[in-house]
Amino acid sequence: MVDKIIENEIKEAEKLNKEFKEHSVAEFFKKNKQMLGFYGPVRTLTMVVHEYVTNSLDACEETGILPDIDVKIDELGKEYYEVTVTDNGPGISQENVGKAFGKLLAGTKFHRLIQSRGQQGIGCSGCTMLSQMTTGKSSKIITGQKGKKPISLEIMIDPKSNSPKITNFKELEKQFQGTAVQAKFKEVIYRDSEQGPLEYLKRTAVANPHCQITLRDPSGQKITFKRTSTKLPEASQEVKPHPKGVSADEILNMAKITKARTISGYIINDFDRTGAKSLEEIRKKVNFDLNKDPAKITWEEAEEIAKAFKSIDFIAPSTDALRPIGEDQIKNSLYSIVKPEFLTVLTRKPAVYSGGFPFQVEIAIAYGGEAGRVLTDGTKKFEIMRFANRVPLPFDAGNCALTHAVQGIDWKRYGIKDAENSPMTVFINFISVHIPYTGAGKQSVADEEEVLEEVRLALMNTGRRAGIYISHKKKDEENQMKRKMFYKYIPEITKALTEMTKTDESKLKEQMQKLVLEKLQLDEAKDKEEMEKLEEQMKNDDKSSFVETKKKKVK
Amino acid sequence: MVDKIIENEIKEAEKLNKEFKEHSVAEFFKKNKQMLGFYGPVRTLTMVVHEYVTNSLDACEETGILPDIDVKIDELGKEYYEVTVTDNGPGISQENVGKAFGKLLAGTKFHRLIQSRGQQGIGCSGCTMLSQMTTGKSSKIITGQKGKKPISLEIMIDPKSNSPKITNFKELEKQFQGTAVQAKFKEVIYRDSEQGPLEYLKRTAVANPHCQITLRDPSGQKITFKRTSTKLPEASQEVKPHPKGVSADEILNMAKITKARTISGYIINDFDRTGAKSLEEIRKKVNFDLNKDPAKITWEEAEEIAKAFKSIDFIAPSTDALRPIGEDQIKNSLYSIVKPEFLTVLTRKPAVYSGGFPFQVEIAIAYGGEAGRVLTDGTKKFEIMRFANRVPLPFDAGNCALTHAVQGIDWKRYGIKDAENSPMTVFINFISVHIPYTGAGKQSVADEEEVLEEVRLALMNTGRRAGIYISHKKKDEENQMKRKMFYKYIPEITKALTEMTKTDESKLKEQMQKLVLEKLQLDEAKDKEEMEKLEEQMKNDDKSSFVETKKKKVK
Repeated sequence: MVDKIIENEIKEAEKLNKEFKEHSVAEFFKKNKQMLGFYGPVRTLTMVVHEYVTNSLDACEETGILPDIDVKIDELGKEYYEVTVTDNGPGISQENVGKAFGKLLAGTKFHRLIQSRGQQGIGCSGCTMLSQMTTGKSSKIITGQKGKKPISLEIMIDPKSNSPKITNFKELEKQFQGTAVQAKFKEVIYRDSEQGPLEYLKRTAVANPHCQITLRDPSGQKITFKRTSTKLPEASQEVKPHPKGVSADEILNMAKITKARTISGYIINDFDRTGAKSLEEIRKKVNFDLNKDPAKITWEEAEEIAKAFKSIDFIAPSTDALRPIGEDQIKNSLYSIVKPEFLTVLTRKPAVYSGGFPFQVEIAIAYGGEAGRVLTDGTKKFEIMRFANRVPLPFDAGNCALTHAVQGIDWKRYGIKDAENSPMTVFINFISVHIPYTGAGKQSVADEEEVLEEVRLALMNTGRRAGIYISHKKKDEENQMKRKMFYKYIPEITKALTEMTKTDESKLKEQMQKLVLEKLQLDEAKDKEEMEKLEEQMKNDDKSSFVETKKKKVK
Repeated sequence: MVDKIIENEIKEAEKLNKEFKEHSVAEFFKKNKQMLGFYGPVRTLTMVVHEYVTNSLDACEETGILPDIDVKIDELGKEYYEVTVTDNGPGISQENVGKAFGKLLAGTKFHRLIQSRGQQGIGCSGCTMLSQMTTGKSSKIITGQKGKKPISLEIMIDPKSNSPKITNFKELEKQFQGTAVQAKFKEVIYRDSEQGPLEYLKRTAVANPHCQITLRDPSGQKITFKRTSTKLPEASQEVKPHPKGVSADEILNMAKITKARTISGYIINDFDRTGAKSLEEIRKKVNFDLNKDPAKITWEEAEEIAKAFKSIDFIAPSTDALRPIGEDQIKNSLYSIVKPEFLTVLTRKPAVYSGGFPFQVEIAIAYGGEAGRVLTDGTKKFEIMRFANRVPLPFDAGNCALTHAVQGIDWKRYGIKDAENSPMTVFINFISVHIPYTGAGKQSVADEEEVLEEVRLALMNTGRRAGIYISHKKKDEENQMKRKMFYKYIPEITKALTEMTKTDESKLKEQMQKLVLEKLQLDEAKDKEEMEKLEEQMKNDDKSSFVETKKKKVK
């Protein structure tokens, strides 16, 4: 009996061992397409537009081209759409086009520390996979590089091998520079909602004032978001990792591929902001010879370097790495698209989060006008527009560090009494050479402490400014009301007084008006003085929280 | 000049094309470890424990072994810990041990439709990678299969090739069946909080009453969660996809590997709940010959079948596929661990969500006793314990369909006035052959419509029952209070009355008590009657929402 049970157990264990299989990353994401953000019919269509547009913008900017993006969405049937995205970018070579649209985890961005929208090499090939999964059809690509004949082809992915299958390859005779992709999708719905493609593109335009984006929606309507700036953001530079935050593992891995012949050389050449001075400090702190061949570094030695890096001061990461939108550009773009009554914008200085990744935060608070989220009944609510490297993040707000930071702010402290029901839009752009997304669908930023803190500081600062405006506005409104009321009753009061005192009515009226006016002016002057005090205080706060960057040391 | 610009653009484009590289899934998750849930020092340690324990439980159950899991966490230094997890499972073969702990996307679960905790083949190898990334050390494994000599080895991952590097391989002479893994981690912290390993294991014990789990925490304390049941859940069966919800793509892919020689045979053999009758209905709805070779099926034909599947009725998916914990088991385990005053449990019948995946929902509401989340000041708050295939989901509550369903409930309707501040625990176990996790870190379930609806229905039902108890309890408390008050004043009143009326005090007291008692009993009878009415109504509601399964058709 016992033998039988044991025998059975062995059989089960053997069966389990036989079932052991490997699968490709394409099979994985095919079965788990929700991890790429492909779930819900409205969200899925927006995510598709997001992936194509993101890729186009990156390609244009990296090659110094002012982006012109054309998005066309056609309804082919019930929950069945065709998406066409055309850009004026550099085009893709014949050699790489298959990988870009037909192989997951392939691309130009993953292995470089550079600020770009994409960073995984999954997006566009994910769309190709989704299209073939829902319609059985291939995606069509036309791409032309300057000085070469454009090519046209159709592409599908073989999930088993995670590799592209290209058909109908042709060289075209007509002139075309850029990339156009056209793919069909089922189980998706176009909707004009907060989570739809139109709002997504509007937000993209807000954060990318140098882009021209056109949407032709399924009803045939053409909406163009014109560029509000013709200044292309300076091309982002690839950076070396900042010593603060690199781990022993990274030091070890980088040492294996460095061109330097000694560890000293390696420390100076391969990290950001290291130099003779920091090298001397490190030399004092480690227990081995820095003239050693970096290829021979041990884990323990790498750990010693990591520890030394953490214990000494370095200049903040090179701003070369980061390309904020800039306060003026954000202002122009929000004034042109959100048309607020009041707007305050702040670009913080760069900081580093764990892993040695430099990042930077830009915040704007817009109030009144078309700011705020509009409910169907027309009332306005508080709204957060999140962006990462200028890419809108319309989904998964609940899990995002940017949302968490906003939720942590006590708006009442800044005189904003009922923030939840205010016509307010908080704009946050988080930029970094590596965004710590919580998932491959790239919709929310992980709660890294340093990130939370920077966003919080920026919110406090802009919150104060917005609060002053809002209180100001409220005071103004009250004064206006007072003035109106007084003026309304002056005639009646004068009339009564005239009867009682038997004096000249018009003279009395004049005197009354003068009296009231003086009283009101006195009130307003007092309010103004209070406001000025507050503003002064705000300026001081700003000074204390903003140390001059170049010399700011990262502790 | 223009030529120069063009030349430059071409150069940039060429540079970009050269940068095109592929990377492995291991490199991807190494750079994005936060996507596996590895971020935040407390959360990371809990995730490690979660991955190992999950694997152990699956292995035991699949081979019919009552799990005995031993978790040991030792503090080695500042933010530096060693985790050892030992199970009494079937062990892993020499051939597979490398892949199980040293290769991402390899395992027994991904390609089968079977209810299990793991489903990706990432967890344990993710831990190996995290350990080597933070400490430079390999993970130690000892594993023994029945009838074979146990083996011991150390393992690391080569991220470039996503493959295991095994060292120190030994055959052991001593007897051992099971698997023990020991690995070191830096940048993690052990904490006794809601998100720490202890609470995680407690919740694991709640949802797995047949498991014995021991934790030896860093302070040396040993906590054992004893099994409350020796009944091993019946082994889950692999199922065929249910025709409701399979897509054309799946029909096409399955057709390529079917053993059937005709499409008719394929439809009958390879899907759940299909038979001669449904085949006839399908034959009428499609425009091609079902005797055709399935290997030759076109996309259009697959689409026709998918459409036909959707338009006809099928019996609900086989319950064979799903292994709920069961109402009695949940009761025992919650009574033993949460010790509530009141408990109501409901296991819903299986349903299907898009993709043809059967799923089922189990809900319990516990009230009073140790139920509810305890704040540091001792007050109790509403608590949600989420589980997927019996695995606790302590993180990312905000983005989860299970949370969203709970948030959608208007507790006031069930007589629970201030749910937020009630000592209440809502237990939700979502089981399926494929959990639609929103990320590879597997902490929240995507908002699939059918899932939301099932959870909502179950919550409404259990909510009603809990509401009745809670109102009952409140009424009872009120009656108790009344009684106390009356009795308290009877002597005084009698005394006063005696003086006024000059009657016998003891006789008067007796009469008074009788009078009060009658009045109170009358009140209570009335309350009871109301409650019975409510309960009756609840029963009718239950009937209307629960159609007998076996015959329940999926529309």
